[in-house]
Amino acid sequence: MNRYDAPLREMRFVLNEVLDVSGQLAGAAGMAPERELVDAVLEEAARFSGQVLAPLNSVGDTHGCVLDKSDASVRTPPGFREAYAQFVEGGWGGLTAPAEWGGQHLPEVVGAAVKEMIDSANLAWGTYPLLSHGATEALKHHGEAWQREVFLRPIVEGRWTGTMCLTEPHAGSDLGLLKTRAEPAGDGTYALHGTKIFITAGEHDFTDNIVHLVLARLPDAPAGVRGISLFIVPKFRVSRDGVVGERNAVHCGSLEHKMGLRGSATCVMNFDGAVGYLIAEPNRGLQAMFTMMNSARLAVGLQGLGLSERASQNAAAYARDRLQMRALSGARAPELPADPIIEHPDVRRMLLTQKALIEAGRVLVYEACLQIDLADRAPDPERRTQAEARASLLTPIVKGFLTESAVECTYHALQVFGGHGYIAEWGMEQLARDARITTIYEGTTQIQALDLIGRKVLTNQGRELGLWLAEIDQECAAAEGSSKAHADSLRSAASSLAAAAGTIGQRTSVNADELGAAAYDFLMAASYVALGWCWLRMLRAAAANPEAVDGREKRATAAFYFARMLPRADMHLACLGSGLETLEMTAAAAPAAG
Amino acid sequence: MNRYDAPLREMRFVLNEVLDVSGQLAGAAGMAPERELVDAVLEEAARFSGQVLAPLNSVGDTHGCVLDKSDASVRTPPGFREAYAQFVEGGWGGLTAPAEWGGQHLPEVVGAAVKEMIDSANLAWGTYPLLSHGATEALKHHGEAWQREVFLRPIVEGRWTGTMCLTEPHAGSDLGLLKTRAEPAGDGTYALHGTKIFITAGEHDFTDNIVHLVLARLPDAPAGVRGISLFIVPKFRVSRDGVVGERNAVHCGSLEHKMGLRGSATCVMNFDGAVGYLIAEPNRGLQAMFTMMNSARLAVGLQGLGLSERASQNAAAYARDRLQMRALSGARAPELPADPIIEHPDVRRMLLTQKALIEAGRVLVYEACLQIDLADRAPDPERRTQAEARASLLTPIVKGFLTESAVECTYHALQVFGGHGYIAEWGMEQLARDARITTIYEGTTQIQALDLIGRKVLTNQGRELGLWLAEIDQECAAAEGSSKAHADSLRSAASSLAAAAGTIGQRTSVNADELGAAAYDFLMAASYVALGWCWLRMLRAAAANPEAVDGREKRATAAFYFARMLPRADMHLACLGSGLETLEMTAAAAPAAG
Repeated sequence: MNRYDAPLREMRFVLNEVLDVSGQLAGAAGMAPERELVDAVLEEAARFSGQVLAPLNSVGDTHGCVLDKSDASVRTPPGFREAYAQFVEGGWGGLTAPAEWGGQHLPEVVGAAVKEMIDSANLAWGTYPLLSHGATEALKHHGEAWQREVFLRPIVEGRWTGTMCLTEPHAGSDLGLLKTRAEPAGDGTYALHGTKIFITAGEHDFTDNIVHLVLARLPDAPAGVRGISLFIVPKFRVSRDGVVGERNAVHCGSLEHKMGLRGSATCVMNFDGAVGYLIAEPNRGLQAMFTMMNSARLAVGLQGLGLSERASQNAAAYARDRLQMRALSGARAPELPADPIIEHPDVRRMLLTQKALIEAGRVLVYEACLQIDLADRAPDPERRTQAEARASLLTPIVKGFLTESAVECTYHALQVFGGHGYIAEWGMEQLARDARITTIYEGTTQIQALDLIGRKVLTNQGRELGLWLAEIDQECAAAEGSSKAHADSLRSAASSLAAAAGTIGQRTSVNADELGAAAYDFLMAASYVALGWCWLRMLRAAAANPEAVDGREKRATAAFYFARMLPRADMHLACLGSGLETLEMTAAAAPAAG
Repeated sequence: MNRYDAPLREMRFVLNEVLDVSGQLAGAAGMAPERELVDAVLEEAARFSGQVLAPLNSVGDTHGCVLDKSDASVRTPPGFREAYAQFVEGGWGGLTAPAEWGGQHLPEVVGAAVKEMIDSANLAWGTYPLLSHGATEALKHHGEAWQREVFLRPIVEGRWTGTMCLTEPHAGSDLGLLKTRAEPAGDGTYALHGTKIFITAGEHDFTDNIVHLVLARLPDAPAGVRGISLFIVPKFRVSRDGVVGERNAVHCGSLEHKMGLRGSATCVMNFDGAVGYLIAEPNRGLQAMFTMMNSARLAVGLQGLGLSERASQNAAAYARDRLQMRALSGARAPELPADPIIEHPDVRRMLLTQKALIEAGRVLVYEACLQIDLADRAPDPERRTQAEARASLLTPIVKGFLTESAVECTYHALQVFGGHGYIAEWGMEQLARDARITTIYEGTTQIQALDLIGRKVLTNQGRELGLWLAEIDQECAAAEGSSKAHADSLRSAASSLAAAAGTIGQRTSVNADELGAAAYDFLMAASYVALGWCWLRMLRAAAANPEAVDGREKRATAAFYFARMLPRADMHLACLGSGLETLEMTAAAAPAAG
């Protein structure tokens, strides 16, 4: 009852026309793939996600994962394991990994399109390979030679998977509070003791081994985040020459019962003297973990996009099929007992909201991934630095906003279905439940908001924000025809955003809490500016190549965006304008008990 | 893990200080209850909902309802049936029903406070008695004498329950499409044939009999909504002198698997020649049903409020307990390993958003119920007419907005819990899932929006809107001290709202679809104006009686509302400003398949 067809034409439009990936990556070592190769990859990914993964989405939700307490093994939903075997067989796990470790070395921006399809098709299934990507990044950048040799290749090949073990019961957003300890065993290894919670894919039946990347404290570690180290803890021990040995003392203690994402095994992991290997410098674990986290944050933004896309496809199809009432101005389909509900303007408002968020959101997250590619491999060092700064600026916007958008899009999509959206049969409520985690894990929206205004905007005196807004201004200057009015609206919003950053900076210098009082609304306002920028870029690309996309449709959706969504930017700026003063809560202000 | 304490002090503040229920109802026949009686009722309801119903909330979600196909019986979750017996024992079912049918004849506004508590404590359980209230209203106003005698008293006494059987697979918002038919049997009864879906409490084990109120078509009925009649179809047949007879041919065919509200039996009901009795005039069923529907719509608004209240209570408590990170301006609780997250401004923003919506929302829905009481029983006929018009105006705002608010409040509350909000253990995700139906059933937000601008505003040339806005203006004029600035903001928003109504009227006279293009944003803007009005009323009442409430807390939350929520009104008015033109979707604008 719930379809998914990969939006290949739209993806190609973004990659080729809007972002000009080939042009941008020209000259980057081994990075400018042939368009034919990319096309083939996308088509094969569309087939795999649509035919193999999508039908398993409701299966995962219905069956969930089952823990066998006798041996702490986890049975994943029917079909999941077999789908993973196909995934490995197709070489998908190493799509963007370096060739020296068995990967195909395709750009992250191409990997992003593939990830989006997987997330649309089956978000829960997609969480298993997802964490391998983060582990790959961490090992690549911080692992010793033997660690890369022993652990990286099996992960890239998909024979093993990775996890990120960060959260503890009392340490979520605040990793400085974590208590898991690592004691030197004297032989260069460490014995890890502690409990981690909310560990995605912490245990499963996809692969023989699982490589946990674990944050823990050394005995002499300073308190707080400066005393956290990163360790490799494999489910089965592995010698330095790669021989797999006995079962390590790390076990899944229980599975969480979650609102959604039920096909994904969310584990409590107990470390009872498990053997671990230090990765990166002692007490520098958080920095190393950030390598994984930035990658994971863009990936979660893609999850939001993928869920929104699937929800939107189904809502649009339903709105064309479902007959209820006549258009107020007269019957549109007099031969039918009623008009399709897409004829009702407010149903179109809900569909267009999704389209406007999704299509511009895709440009935004692919753009961020392209900047990651450029940061990694552009020939010019200055270009690499610029790209890294841009990716850093965009990452909290992508993670924060595309996940909030997913909540909104799945909300609208369900609403279009009315009562049928609320029952399991149509699959819309699963998408809404699955989406709800995305604004939480890998750093809540609140954490993203603080990251944006605090670390990405104010710490460099707004320089990077200024560079980005200057680029937006150039895009506005390039607007022609009906885009000119849109550009004027965007310029105004962008200039208000810049002014707000200045105000927040001044206030924060007086009282640091002003940062937190403004962060969320600043993130949201910046996001609507970002999407306006993406819409102008799409309009320009559509005008430049009328064959690549339906230009009239793009213009209509853009007109909707600028008229009916961009006003949210001003609203958020108005809200943050009042500052910390209006966020007072008296001691008694919990909802009063009787 | 999930608490509920009835907010009695807040409820009393609204009933006594803000609305002055006793004063308003003085002179209304038998309608001005002693304050001591009301207090006793509220306290007993708080006890029953907190101690009996609240602990069963997660039980209902976990167990759901079970259909035994062998006899089409439905087993409700453990404890539900016993709780209902206590409810009947306490006389709660007839709280607001006429004394002549066994009721206690308390005002609806008092019943509203009791309903709110029930909905906070256990929304799913509350759906069983809820529909009895609608059936009572329909029978009271439209039933023949024998029908009232035979059916009304057992319902009021709680021995039987009622249902509303409207929806069919192809007839949801559009009841004109319904196909269930009623054939005259020649003896004054009718034989009903057809299938109804989404029937709340259609079958259960609470009572011996169930009284279905069913919309169906007579053989010679005109097409559309002018050919719909209303029938009483009891589960067990009842003779005109009240003797219960054999099982009627109406059976539960299946139960829906829903996103939430799992303790509520949502039934497919099959009518296979079931014996029914015509109620009201032939082909006037929809009008009679509207009697039930208006009551049900206010009741669903209360559901939204109740869910928001419970979510908010738990989020506030968690935010005081959960320790993560230090306030950016320095440690607030240096003796603890980290500060309570309520010290982070954005957590307070989420809590204050809930508080601001809930406290003003409570004033709004109680006010609407008070108008229902006045419409029913004020001594002066003109006052009754005024009150009915006001209740009509407020009903779509209450239903539409308080349910959308419930989605938002449960969203924020879950977010405050972070990852713990997403797992079942804490109960927050259940509240979010339960809330999601409220914007759909008893008329979607879209239907409420069309009702407001179309039937309640434009059909009387904006007269009723004008009267209401004039009253708001008076409230603004009465503002003193720090409320004056709030009043200025509200006046500005109210005047923009009035202007928007005029614009919509003009546009609609040219193209009727402009109504649908503006309806949603108009509803939302009107709602934020309405809440601003309620906040000013609360501030005035708090100033008048400083003992009744914590005035400082009220002023702080009001400051939050006017600075950080009222700007949404302008945003919605900006969005609707562009009209139908920006809601264009091309034929191809379903999200493009590859």
